[in-house]
Parts: sequence; structure tokens; C-alpha cells
Amino acid sequence: MKLADLTKGAGEWLRGAGPMHDVVISSRIRLARNLAGVPFLAQCGAEQQNEIEQRLRREILDAGIANEVLYVDIAAAGELDRQLLVARHLISRQHATASHPRGVTVSSDETCAIMVNEEDHLRIQVLRSGLDLADAISDIMRVDDLLETRLDYAFHAKYGYLTACPTNVGTGLRVSVMLHLPALKMTGEIEKAFRAAHDMRLAIRGLFGEGTEATGDFFQVSNQTTLGKSEEQIVREFLTEMVPQFVAYERRAREALVERRVVAVDDKARRSLALLRTARLISTDETMYLLSLVRLGVNTGRLDEVDLKTINELFLLTQPAHLQKMLNKKLESEDRAEARASYIRRRLGAD
Amino acid sequence: MKLADLTKGAGEWLRGAGPMHDVVISSRIRLARNLAGVPFLAQCGAEQQNEIEQRLRREILDAGIANEVLYVDIAAAGELDRQLLVARHLISRQHATASHPRGVTVSSDETCAIMVNEEDHLRIQVLRSGLDLADAISDIMRVDDLLETRLDYAFHAKYGYLTACPTNVGTGLRVSVMLHLPALKMTGEIEKAFRAAHDMRLAIRGLFGEGTEATGDFFQVSNQTTLGKSEEQIVREFLTEMVPQFVAYERRAREALVERRVVAVDDKARRSLALLRTARLISTDETMYLLSLVRLGVNTGRLDEVDLKTINELFLLTQPAHLQKMLNKKLESEDRAEARASYIRRRLGAD
Repeated sequence: MKLADLTKGAGEWLRGAGPMHDVVISSRIRLARNLAGVPFLAQCGAEQQNEIEQRLRREILDAGIANEVLYVDIAAAGELDRQLLVARHLISRQHATASHPRGVTVSSDETCAIMVNEEDHLRIQVLRSGLDLADAISDIMRVDDLLETRLDYAFHAKYGYLTACPTNVGTGLRVSVMLHLPALKMTGEIEKAFRAAHDMRLAIRGLFGEGTEATGDFFQVSNQTTLGKSEEQIVREFLTEMVPQFVAYERRAREALVERRVVAVDDKARRSLALLRTARLISTDETMYLLSLVRLGVNTGRLDEVDLKTINELFLLTQPAHLQKMLNKKLESEDRAEARASYIRRRLGAD
Repeated sequence: MKLADLTKGAGEWLRGAGPMHDVVISSRIRLARNLAGVPFLAQCGAEQQNEIEQRLRREILDAGIANEVLYVDIAAAGELDRQLLVARHLISRQHATASHPRGVTVSSDETCAIMVNEEDHLRIQVLRSGLDLADAISDIMRVDDLLETRLDYAFHAKYGYLTACPTNVGTGLRVSVMLHLPALKMTGEIEKAFRAAHDMRLAIRGLFGEGTEATGDFFQVSNQTTLGKSEEQIVREFLTEMVPQFVAYERRAREALVERRVVAVDDKARRSLALLRTARLISTDETMYLLSLVRLGVNTGRLDEVDLKTINELFLLTQPAHLQKMLNKKLESEDRAEARASYIRRRLGAD
């Protein structure tokens, strides 16, 4: 498996399936882990950071976490490859732009990724399509157990797993769910949904995680603290209480739209698909905006010319890093806009 | 011939032919005339205005100005019919909204229209497709001569024809040419063209004449004064100097766009056509904007799925009055937007 293979598809987690996939794009769980008896990364010198990276790379590759894995030495990777991994949600922006020894292990289906020497020594992540947190939690526990047989984790009998940032102490677990809420946006009820999220002590972010705004119609909700609750409890709250509430809000808003303003829904969905099929130049932002409206059209049964998998994949594959990786060269903004439009037309069978 | 027949087509002058029709939509000449020995309209009482209207209606209908003519008593006409006549450039807005006795005679091909009791007793107008002022001036002179055998015009040996407003004294002639200048707009050179028009002492107006802004990419240029020049001189200046200059500017800008930014031209033209073909709701303003870009695509040879005649007709037939007349009922704005979108899709063969 090579890194370039990643541009061929969009990862298992974007296939547009799984529970409540009409509203929930994907579910993600990550665990923060550190080695016992070794300082946190920020307290290590370059040599020690290098030793940690070498050791963890070896142990992870030997642990057999998946049939096929790829290890990327981020410090040695090119800028485009680093951007690609960020766009695919396999590493964080911080991990891409840091300068110390670090890496990431990725399973070939991209459902599992383990960052080495991010903020913590280990950041284990599991991704799923739709609201499949039950499967995600059992998978990440399996990976965590596999690694724990080989590594001695920093763990405190009272506080739990010790982490570089106090907000992660305890389970070290963060659950994030990516929601598509175009109808709530269109009816103006999205602010109400945000307030509800705030009351549930959830953080809201944009499509590309921490530091990105919740633009367009995509919102990532995640827990803010991990202390004082068990892994199962955090996941259960997401799975049975919080996310189903958002899904119910959005579904009701979609039904109301189709009932009361069906022509407006048809208008927006059809215009958006037509633009994606004919544009010769298109920006990332406009692409996201149009894909979102097409997705709404498909999910309300008003549009049947495209499938969810294609739409979900286009969200990812039209990002700057992917276009450049697919064409194997760095492109200026205007050239990217042309390459993006051309790629979209081909994928939508319009060329 | 009935007024309702007017909604079936768009008038001979919008057929997208004639000299320089890639830039010049249409040419218009009008003459202001008043009866000798009768006060100007504003100085007449209601009874005298009525007498003038009755007399002129009879004389015009008897004069044989065209094979088939329609006389519309504007004071008796419904609001929708009056709006329809304004949209088709057959009467002025002022004529539509006034309340005194008045009318208009229209030839069945709409190339000739004679308003009775507008600002002057008579306003004769001739319309042509493209820059066909030579034909227009000879036709309007023919009509003027026909009427002059029956009517005694107010004429002063030194000043010429006497009119209600001093700016029309002399020949009483106004030439207006409707230009489509999308490339100058896109390249930002339109301001330069406006300054040139100002230097030539031309007035610039929007698509629907006096009181409308020059929005979109359509501009109507016309002479501001008529005194001191002969009819032939005014027309010759438009025909051989002023309009060809604008046409040359616009054509050069189009060539430059295709040479340097062909992808942007393709992008705009194709997106616009796609939107017109798929929208379920569309405003008049957006329709004009999109049609303008489609027209640019056709005129630069980058788009061949639509003909100029259809585009020109849509400019007119998508106006509120036409939609309502075609559907034979008054519609609210949202319903008009739906009817407009549906009509456009049908005309573009997209439904």
C-alpha cells in the first residue's frame, strides 16, 4: 500500500452508509495515550522524541492492528502528502505542520489511524460511516488492548490515563460525530440546535476539525471533557441521547421543507447539481455549498441522479491536496479551480 | 389582431438579426408631433383631450400606415395590458400610468407604434432589430408623411416642430439604440465607454428606457437634444460614428476575453444556461443576468445550444406582465418566479 493509493477512493467511512447516514456523515473516536516513565512529548529533547518515534513505529507495525497498514514518517513526508492526510482526517493540522520526529500508521481501509508524537505519544483513532459508534468503540478498544500488551501506558489509579493536556485526562477519549444539517440551516433553526449542543457541553467545529469554522452545512460535535465518566458512558450518551436528538431535529426540518417549500428545495438541489455538472471553474467553498444542497435533494427524495457515496467522496476528493495529488503537481488557485471543475464533471458523468 | 396575440412572440425587432446584431439588440426612432391650433396636452381640459384622442385615433386608423393595426384605448385597458405594452416598448411608463384619455396604435409586427396624448399629441415610433437605423428612418418618414397629409402639425419656420418639452423642439426626433455590452462590463472597461457616451452627449439608460437604471449588461444610448441638426444628420452620426465605436469596443473586449480567459467565459456561459434550464424559481433580475451571459457565450462562439432569437425573446417574455398575460391571471412574486422558471425551461427544451 502506498500513500498515493489514498486518492483513488474516499475511505470506508465516507461510503454514505451506517445508522442515520442521512444526517450523520461519520463517527470518530480517539484515545490519547502516553508511555509510562517517559516525559510528555513537549518535555523531551529531539533525541528522545526520535527514540519514542522509532520505538512506537516498530511496536505498532508489529502489533497486527489490521491486515495491511501504512506507516508515514511525517517529518520526512512532502507538504502535499501531509495536506492529503489532514484532508482525509488521518492526522491533525498540528501534526502536519510540526517539525519534530513524528508519524502516523493508517490501516488500508482508513478506519484506523494512530498518530505518533502528536500532543501525546499516541493518538489512536477509529472512523466509521454513519452513527456507528458501537462498532467504533469495540474496534478502538481492540486496538488499544493490542498495543497495551506491548507498551506500558502512563496510568494513575485515581485519575485514569495521563495526558499532556488536562482536558484529556481520564479516559483520554474523544467522540466526534460529523453532522449534515442543511435543513436546519435553511429554516434558521440551526442556532437553536447550537444552543442545545452547548447545553449538552458539546464542542462544535467545522468539517476539518479543531481550528476550522462550522461553515457550510457541516458540523462536527464532540465531547469537551473525559474525566469522571467511563468510555461506555460517553459513547452511550452520544449514541442514544445527543446525536439522535440532532438527527430528529434535522429530519423534522427536512420534512417541513418538503411539505411547505418543496419548489424551493427542488430549485436549490437542481440548480446545484446543474452547476456542478457544467462549471469550468469552481472553488472549494462553492463545491461544498453545492454538494450540501445536492445531498439534501437526494436525502429528501427530490433528486435521484446521484448517489450518496459519490457526493460524500466529492466532499473529500475536491479538496486542494487531493486534486494536486491526483494530478501529481502543485497547482495555483485558478488552475485548481479548473482541475476541480473538470474532476467533478467527470465523476458526475457530465463530460 | 388582439392584444393577447402579442404574448405569442416577441416582435420583429427582437429576432436577433440586422446589422451588428451581436452587440446591437435593437434600434428605435421616435418623432414628437403636435397639432397646430390646439393647446399642448397639459393645457387642455379633459373634454378637449378626449376630442384630440377621438380625432387622432380615427385619422391614424384611416391613414393606412400598415396592413394590420391594433388600436388600444389605454384609459380603458386593464393594468396587465398596460404593463404588457410597456414591457414590449410600445408605450412609455408615463403613458401607462396616466389617467387622461389616451391610446396607442400598433402595427401587427410591432415595428411601428403611435402613442396618442402622451406628452405630445403624437409620438410616432419605429423599432428595428440590430443597427437598422437606415430602414427605420425611411419607414418613420413614410408614416410621418402619411399622417401629415391628414393633420396640420405645429411647425415653426425657424425652430421646426414645436413640442411640449423644449428638448424635443426642432426635428422632434430621438434615436435610441439598445446595446449588449457584457464583455466591457466583465473587463471593467464599461466606465470608459460611459465616459465616451457622455462626451458624445448621449444619454444612457437601462433596458426599459427612461427612469430605469442601466443594470445588467444592457444599455440604451440616445441623443439628448434635437435642435440644430437635421433628421438625417442625427441618424448618420449614430449609424456611422457613435454606435460602430461602441460595437468595436465590445467586440475587442470579447476577443480579448476569449483569447485570455476562455475558461472563465465558458464557465459563466455554461453555468448560466444550466441554471436557466434547471431553476424552479427565478426572478426577473437573475433571468436577465443569466440570459446576458448565455448571449455572450453564443456571440463568442463558445455556446451553440441556443439561438439568439430565443434568448432575445426570453428577455421580453419573462417580464412580469408577459407571464401574467400568458397565464391570464395576476400572480404574486413567488408564483411568478415559479411560472417564469417553468416557461424558460420549456422554451429551452429542458422540460
